[in-house]
Amino acid sequence: MKKRSPFSRLYKLSKEASLLSGIHALLEWDQETFLPSEAITPRSEQLSLLARLIHEKRASRSYGKYLSPWIDLTSGELQRHDLTQEEKALLREWRRDYLLATKLPSSFVEEFAWTTSASIHAWTEAKQTSNFSLFAPHLQKVIDLCRKKADFLGYQEHAYDALLDLYEPGLTLSSLRPLFFSMKELLMNLVQKIVKASPPTLSKIEGIFPSAAQQKLGQELLVTLGLPSSASRLDLSSHPFCTGIHPLDIRMTTRIHEDNPFSSLFSVLHEGGHALYHRNLPKEHYGTPLCEAVSYGIDESQSRFFETILGKSLPFWHFMRSKLQTFFPEQFSSISTEELYLLINQVEPTFIRVEADEVTYGLHILLRFELEVAILEGSLQVSEIPDAWNEQMQKLLGLLPKNDREGCLQDIHWAMGGFGYFPTYALGNLLAAQLFTRIEQQIPLWGQQVENGNFSAITSWLHANIHQHGKTYEAKDLILRATGEPLGVTAYKNYLENKYKKIYAL
Amino acid sequence: MKKRSPFSRLYKLSKEASLLSGIHALLEWDQETFLPSEAITPRSEQLSLLARLIHEKRASRSYGKYLSPWIDLTSGELQRHDLTQEEKALLREWRRDYLLATKLPSSFVEEFAWTTSASIHAWTEAKQTSNFSLFAPHLQKVIDLCRKKADFLGYQEHAYDALLDLYEPGLTLSSLRPLFFSMKELLMNLVQKIVKASPPTLSKIEGIFPSAAQQKLGQELLVTLGLPSSASRLDLSSHPFCTGIHPLDIRMTTRIHEDNPFSSLFSVLHEGGHALYHRNLPKEHYGTPLCEAVSYGIDESQSRFFETILGKSLPFWHFMRSKLQTFFPEQFSSISTEELYLLINQVEPTFIRVEADEVTYGLHILLRFELEVAILEGSLQVSEIPDAWNEQMQKLLGLLPKNDREGCLQDIHWAMGGFGYFPTYALGNLLAAQLFTRIEQQIPLWGQQVENGNFSAITSWLHANIHQHGKTYEAKDLILRATGEPLGVTAYKNYLENKYKKIYAL
Repeated sequence: MKKRSPFSRLYKLSKEASLLSGIHALLEWDQETFLPSEAITPRSEQLSLLARLIHEKRASRSYGKYLSPWIDLTSGELQRHDLTQEEKALLREWRRDYLLATKLPSSFVEEFAWTTSASIHAWTEAKQTSNFSLFAPHLQKVIDLCRKKADFLGYQEHAYDALLDLYEPGLTLSSLRPLFFSMKELLMNLVQKIVKASPPTLSKIEGIFPSAAQQKLGQELLVTLGLPSSASRLDLSSHPFCTGIHPLDIRMTTRIHEDNPFSSLFSVLHEGGHALYHRNLPKEHYGTPLCEAVSYGIDESQSRFFETILGKSLPFWHFMRSKLQTFFPEQFSSISTEELYLLINQVEPTFIRVEADEVTYGLHILLRFELEVAILEGSLQVSEIPDAWNEQMQKLLGLLPKNDREGCLQDIHWAMGGFGYFPTYALGNLLAAQLFTRIEQQIPLWGQQVENGNFSAITSWLHANIHQHGKTYEAKDLILRATGEPLGVTAYKNYLENKYKKIYAL
Repeated sequence: MKKRSPFSRLYKLSKEASLLSGIHALLEWDQETFLPSEAITPRSEQLSLLARLIHEKRASRSYGKYLSPWIDLTSGELQRHDLTQEEKALLREWRRDYLLATKLPSSFVEEFAWTTSASIHAWTEAKQTSNFSLFAPHLQKVIDLCRKKADFLGYQEHAYDALLDLYEPGLTLSSLRPLFFSMKELLMNLVQKIVKASPPTLSKIEGIFPSAAQQKLGQELLVTLGLPSSASRLDLSSHPFCTGIHPLDIRMTTRIHEDNPFSSLFSVLHEGGHALYHRNLPKEHYGTPLCEAVSYGIDESQSRFFETILGKSLPFWHFMRSKLQTFFPEQFSSISTEELYLLINQVEPTFIRVEADEVTYGLHILLRFELEVAILEGSLQVSEIPDAWNEQMQKLLGLLPKNDREGCLQDIHWAMGGFGYFPTYALGNLLAAQLFTRIEQQIPLWGQQVENGNFSAITSWLHANIHQHGKTYEAKDLILRATGEPLGVTAYKNYLENKYKKIYAL
């Protein structure tokens, strides 16, 4: 795209905000990987100052002044008719960013940051001791602020829409509910059938898998996927994550259990999926929304595609088995690919979302979704959350948590004020299946390629259809372009039912 | 100190500048340790934006407005008579920072940053290929900008004074010259005698010393010195350095040669000396000059004290030998402490400053000092530097470099525009000897304590006399308070002559 000079001031402001956001991301990465433990307070102060500077940039009057000749700030109507597709997208997204920033007063942004920081601290302690009452008063403050945030941002039907829009622009509660209703029906049916079915006889993988070897294996796998160490890193942290500081500086982490070679492997695939997306964003547009992930749901579709759909497929395990044999010959030489495939695809209701299998995972999300909507509406009080959680767990997964640590205290999201975030995990699963359906049609030989450790056709397809577009198209349009369908449950249903029918002989 | 409310706005500005400087330091640390190689351009953009934001804070009009009721910005005269020692120091230093920042126009700061960034890049390549002509045009630009910088900053006698003052506030060329003259006489005499003396018979330490073991040894040593991993880190980089992001977040690096166990050890002691200073700055004053190192020379006195005076002393090697024996039993079990002491204290003229022994080291600095003064004056042209360097090397150390890589291209300092920086290395050596003289008097049992791995009396002394004061006193006053003498050559002369008279039986 020709960078028109009248845009140059907008580019400059946008780029400065992007650079500061990248710095903020680096500081968060450092906090989870290398920061000395005593330095947590100075780090919070650095992050809070940066957050304020980013907000000041995004909400600066100059931004509005430079934007308004191009786009009506109130209606979003473009003021010129000779704009390219990319210019239109830029103006749409810059306006969105500007309005989001200006709707939230600086003092509110600061209050939100400090309140959630204290709340995360309290949650950590509450989780460790499984003591919900330590967390409850903090959570109440966070909920109050989230409601206030929704009011500042504005909404038509439901306060939840305002928060959902932060993660999945344009999505509303009323469009999400029928989708999640179908999903729930599908998953509960499938789990019920699987639980009743006779489980296959499974081999065991036992032994010690040294951390250094597992980390090296992860790094090699990432290189195979197209993530060289010259532009990305894999380090250790207590919760795996991926942060794209720039398309040339992608940081992933994993968590390693030395008695289990699979846990880190699937984390690496998950974070690798995010990383490929962020690496393949169009770096010539760095500093603008065109070089940003379009939505949390689409970002999650990339990670879930690599972690589950590809990473738990039979062709992938043909490749992976031979790789594991070179790293851990003793443990992996006497097991067949088919046995491994059965082993990693076991379905069993469990308490912890991040350890859940492909089928039950969605139910963990639906539980959280229903509770958080009720919390925001005020129909569920903070003190009632533990009981409501346990009741839903029994209903959806047939399990009663022994304590809140394995119940409503397991996730950080509410503590950090992330109401509206969980649904994007489910969307990621739905969309990953839609993408896979399309890939199966368009790359019929994908399985043979993957068996041989060749992922380039798949990653090129994702690059062409998702990654390279950044925010050029809105999420719903990008999904339609890439998969030929709007977001729905059909592909997901077909994928899960076909796969598990075979595994469990349903 | 009671934080008077009229000061509160100054505190806020000062703290924000400190936080941004800490973030800048973290990004530089990351660049040298973990940054993926392709990400160097985005990192430069992040650093350059931060440098501008820091300069904007330090030069903001509000700073001047809030300062002027307390201190006359032109004369430095305090406007109130009821100020505490610390308040006086704060106002003195805030005024200094403000004047330094406002004297340099933003456009100049940016030009300087970009020019030196390109110059460092050219220097790296020129050094690799030992091709001075690649570097020469860049160096010319840097020199022009340094002259311009000196003009912006202002000076009374010599442009060099303006630059020297950035590193060693208040020091001038005319006060430095007699000091360096005595130093040169002392060192040339001593080297001459040593070169003529018959060298002691030396044992050899050979073998492979694995990187991981050397790093672990370094980390243990740092803990023994009072640098726990909860507030500091030791990582690897191609040039060792220490950066104090906050007293609770100190980052050190070392470089490891697997065929040499001493190189990293002395780097760790050197960076550990800096680290102890930055860790022991009064953290209750973080965000103000009271929690900053007072000068580069004093900072260097701390690193050189631990690296050379303590780190190359006989008592230290009693302790160190047993530590090395537990890490590398094969190589260190048949060598006595006295043999090790002789081995690590060999004096021999060599080409490379950073590898030089305690005695010849100073001559490397004096060479650079004389050249850089001539360069700034214009009496030495860029094209003449290689020859002038080689001529001085022959005169001072009796050696003729084979190429510019082991001659005038070895250091990064001129490439980064650091004219005026080198002298502080020599000052660090002088001052370290003065501190040691005082410590010997006041802690007569220091040797026995160190033999047993107990450094607390020494580190407490340094804490009480240097570290805890930050910038409360100006450098010259702090030196006088701590050592009872102004900065001079006597202690250094006595220390070196006594030590090497014994080693070489002079």
